[in-house]
Amino acid sequence: MNSYCRILVSLAAVLLIAAVAEGALKTQTVEYKDGDVTCEGYLAYDDAVTTPRPGVLVVHEWTGLGPYVKMRADKLAQLGYVAFAADIYGKGIRPKNSDEAAAQASIYRKDRSLMRRRAQAALQVLADNKLVDRKRIAAIGYCFGGGTALELARSGADLAGVVSFHGNLDTPNPADAKNIKGKILVQHGGSDPYVTAEQLAAFEKEMANAGVNWQVIVYGGAVHSFTNPDSGTDPSKGAAYNEQADKRSWVAMKQFFDEIFK
Amino acid sequence: MNSYCRILVSLAAVLLIAAVAEGALKTQTVEYKDGDVTCEGYLAYDDAVTTPRPGVLVVHEWTGLGPYVKMRADKLAQLGYVAFAADIYGKGIRPKNSDEAAAQASIYRKDRSLMRRRAQAALQVLADNKLVDRKRIAAIGYCFGGGTALELARSGADLAGVVSFHGNLDTPNPADAKNIKGKILVQHGGSDPYVTAEQLAAFEKEMANAGVNWQVIVYGGAVHSFTNPDSGTDPSKGAAYNEQADKRSWVAMKQFFDEIFK
Repeated sequence: MNSYCRILVSLAAVLLIAAVAEGALKTQTVEYKDGDVTCEGYLAYDDAVTTPRPGVLVVHEWTGLGPYVKMRADKLAQLGYVAFAADIYGKGIRPKNSDEAAAQASIYRKDRSLMRRRAQAALQVLADNKLVDRKRIAAIGYCFGGGTALELARSGADLAGVVSFHGNLDTPNPADAKNIKGKILVQHGGSDPYVTAEQLAAFEKEMANAGVNWQVIVYGGAVHSFTNPDSGTDPSKGAAYNEQADKRSWVAMKQFFDEIFK
Repeated sequence: MNSYCRILVSLAAVLLIAAVAEGALKTQTVEYKDGDVTCEGYLAYDDAVTTPRPGVLVVHEWTGLGPYVKMRADKLAQLGYVAFAADIYGKGIRPKNSDEAAAQASIYRKDRSLMRRRAQAALQVLADNKLVDRKRIAAIGYCFGGGTALELARSGADLAGVVSFHGNLDTPNPADAKNIKGKILVQHGGSDPYVTAEQLAAFEKEMANAGVNWQVIVYGGAVHSFTNPDSGTDPSKGAAYNEQADKRSWVAMKQFFDEIFK
């Protein structure tokens, strides 16, 4: 690159940074209902954007709505999306340990109608937000939330796409894959002991049989919870943070959004 | 985005386009030797860049070095890399039909030492090019060429990374995966009848056992040759172009290069 090019590129970069820096992150807690149950979600958006923009529903891990998915919602807002972190368990139900998390997740995993309805209620909040272009909504989820986002898609929800990060892939309703309207991106740890190679193979077969637009990325060496820094760094425990897989999967999500939201 | 932002972003985009347009694609045929055998590769680079830059070795499909991989080399040069399309079969050996292609590919698939040596000779041409930063070289390949690029990596070649597009994944030398120095990205058609799910599973096991830094992307609905527009559009034939998978896999390759060449 000659010096003229370098100056132009540098100037362009400075201008882009100036433009992006204009925005300001706004967040708020949002109460909403699923029937008689009150839920408490978390909304994040950039108030510098005034025109309707894509919305992203974020579904939490089995630990429930907490700092981790709020951080993800904030990052999505900084990318220019309206992000809404769903509260699948309901207001005040925030598991304090693995036993409580397993008990809560189990309720919804055993009752997929309830899981779908609870996710749908959160999706409705996002779709009704005036800042959101309701034709451009995706759902993402982590672990339990990845499985919930996929189940929401199987219900026939109006989603342009779903991204699952180390999410559960099993379902009692594989035939419902025919209802899926958007594109699917599954990001999976190659050594995940909780979401097995057999489950991944069954999922791929389910998607293929239903003619879904799907893709799967497998990150070698990554285990469960590979995107969560709070998961420790010891893969032998079956769940561990993997910085490389975290970064790669976030980039892949952004590319996917560029594709489905264009 | 307010109007001030929009103006800044538009100006930045114009400047970036002006900077990129400065470059000019240069190509040339390069003769080189593997022992007594003369090979005829294809070099492509942007002559506007004057400092050493990453090099990318491109290995052809079973049809041999032809317009398809030359097009890929040109595109890589336009991205700012020095691209060199290897000639595995040797000068003048350019299969005219599937039977001839199968016969040629078979010679190298049955003799992996020969395959590795022939690929290494091409890699050496690239590494010796003064425009190339020899610490930042990757190999990519299509079908037969994907398998060849992986075999080159198994030989212990100095590669920062390998990208295989619908490439062969089988090898008689799985233990040699321990020699792999760079990162591996395999891009695979979910319904590829020539590179089966069993071969993919064996490959993933091979990579995991050797502690290789690997990832696999599976494109649902894609079959063999999904990146080649000359493959027709009928997936039932087992090989067919898939525009979406082609675009996605090219973007994924670019992201991978951004990671390994930074």
